[in-house]
Amino acid sequence: MPFEEAVVAHPFDPGYVTEPFLTLCAEYPEADVYPASQFRTEWGPIFHRGRLDGSARVLVIGQDPAQHETVVRRILVGEAGRRVQGLLAKLGITRNYVFVNAYLYSVYGSVRAKTRRNLALVAYRNRWFDALLVGTQVEAVLALGTAADEAWHMWTATPNGQATRLAYAAVTHPTQPESSSQNNKTKLAAATTKLLRNWNAALQTLAPAIAHPDQPTAFVPYGETWGEGERPPIPAFDYPAGLPAWMHEQDGWARRSGSDVLAKRRNLTVTVPKGIVS
Amino acid sequence: MPFEEAVVAHPFDPGYVTEPFLTLCAEYPEADVYPASQFRTEWGPIFHRGRLDGSARVLVIGQDPAQHETVVRRILVGEAGRRVQGLLAKLGITRNYVFVNAYLYSVYGSVRAKTRRNLALVAYRNRWFDALLVGTQVEAVLALGTAADEAWHMWTATPNGQATRLAYAAVTHPTQPESSSQNNKTKLAAATTKLLRNWNAALQTLAPAIAHPDQPTAFVPYGETWGEGERPPIPAFDYPAGLPAWMHEQDGWARRSGSDVLAKRRNLTVTVPKGIVS
Repeated sequence: MPFEEAVVAHPFDPGYVTEPFLTLCAEYPEADVYPASQFRTEWGPIFHRGRLDGSARVLVIGQDPAQHETVVRRILVGEAGRRVQGLLAKLGITRNYVFVNAYLYSVYGSVRAKTRRNLALVAYRNRWFDALLVGTQVEAVLALGTAADEAWHMWTATPNGQATRLAYAAVTHPTQPESSSQNNKTKLAAATTKLLRNWNAALQTLAPAIAHPDQPTAFVPYGETWGEGERPPIPAFDYPAGLPAWMHEQDGWARRSGSDVLAKRRNLTVTVPKGIVS
Repeated sequence: MPFEEAVVAHPFDPGYVTEPFLTLCAEYPEADVYPASQFRTEWGPIFHRGRLDGSARVLVIGQDPAQHETVVRRILVGEAGRRVQGLLAKLGITRNYVFVNAYLYSVYGSVRAKTRRNLALVAYRNRWFDALLVGTQVEAVLALGTAADEAWHMWTATPNGQATRLAYAAVTHPTQPESSSQNNKTKLAAATTKLLRNWNAALQTLAPAIAHPDQPTAFVPYGETWGEGERPPIPAFDYPAGLPAWMHEQDGWARRSGSDVLAKRRNLTVTVPKGIVS
């Protein structure tokens, strides 16, 4: 790695610079595989976040990119990403991780079973898993939500997947408490507690497999709700060059804007957070 | 080059992958050098467009990035960029070019003389010129507008600049006709004709220096107004991975939005062009 956070003012992720990633990012499934009625293909595919240079020790499988990801062109950079960042930190993994999603494009509405099983969709995703898992130093895999879990099992059914043995845990999706509780605070608190218990169980599965943590860490389980430091910012070194600090230090700066469904699909507004511009 | 447009579905620019560009993009001047009262530093620096692998034959110096550039994170990707793309094509240069700006950030209002001459601002920009021009195969330099021309002369006054001899032309900025004519069609037509004459003169200066065009081209001067094919789209291979095609095929999809000056400074809205989403 040419960059170390301590010595570089603005570390960044150089992105897709070697094979097979150069080819994977130049030849990707489009609307014939990801129907525009089920995915926001109009914003282009968003591929990954984290290390592609072979240094990753943990692979995280997410679901699909949302509005912040569309701007940053890296996945899991919003609130869900922060929560996972905190989970990885509990495993001592603060840099050597890599994230890919089950889907290249943001889900619009819901995904049909036929689409989920589309051979071209699955085959392309499996090429990423092959690239990240076959003969690499990844020690554990974490799936966020059911689409990610399904993606993992589709890969483990392939010859490459069958030949690979890795610690694995599937957890509740990091923002499931919000999406399931519909602004009801009592429900949200209960769903959060349930999620954190689920995550504690996953940590116990994965921790023994992490033989090479970035920062050896005494295991501290989650409590009943999110604790201090358990939703850390996304590191600058995961972002493309030149993006402003507020894009990784803060959340909530991108929204789909407009007065009707079509406008909201076509518009994305980025707002510099308060206090940056006077 | 690993990518050729003919064989790759979605060629892209891998960006900042070797020195000195890795360091230049990690350590750049910020608001202490570019005052926030004169520049939109809140959106982060935007560095370049084009070839950084030594294959560039022409260096284009622009002025500053605007809203489309802020989204794409490459410079001169809007209307000004298309016009220059057309000028380069008349020189037979369709791929082996590189663009940098006089300023890393979008100008807000106007730039004070003291800022323009700030030693840190000039020194950083000169490091880019050194990287792109000292011992490289660049054959000609084109400056767009007065800030770019001044930037060039500040570099040619340095020891590295003094030791380098390159064909050079400074031209009227590509969108000067619009900015000078304030929606008056007669004035716009006259200013466009004047600009194109100015550009024809520059082509005559630069053409003899282009010993290695990408596509040898019979010289066709501009007419009285923009002709067919003289504002071509920006090539996909200049954009980061995964950006949708409409971002390089079209213009006018990004705007500063909001009802007052501060809101317009803080908000950027991207709108998928009509016809992409039904």
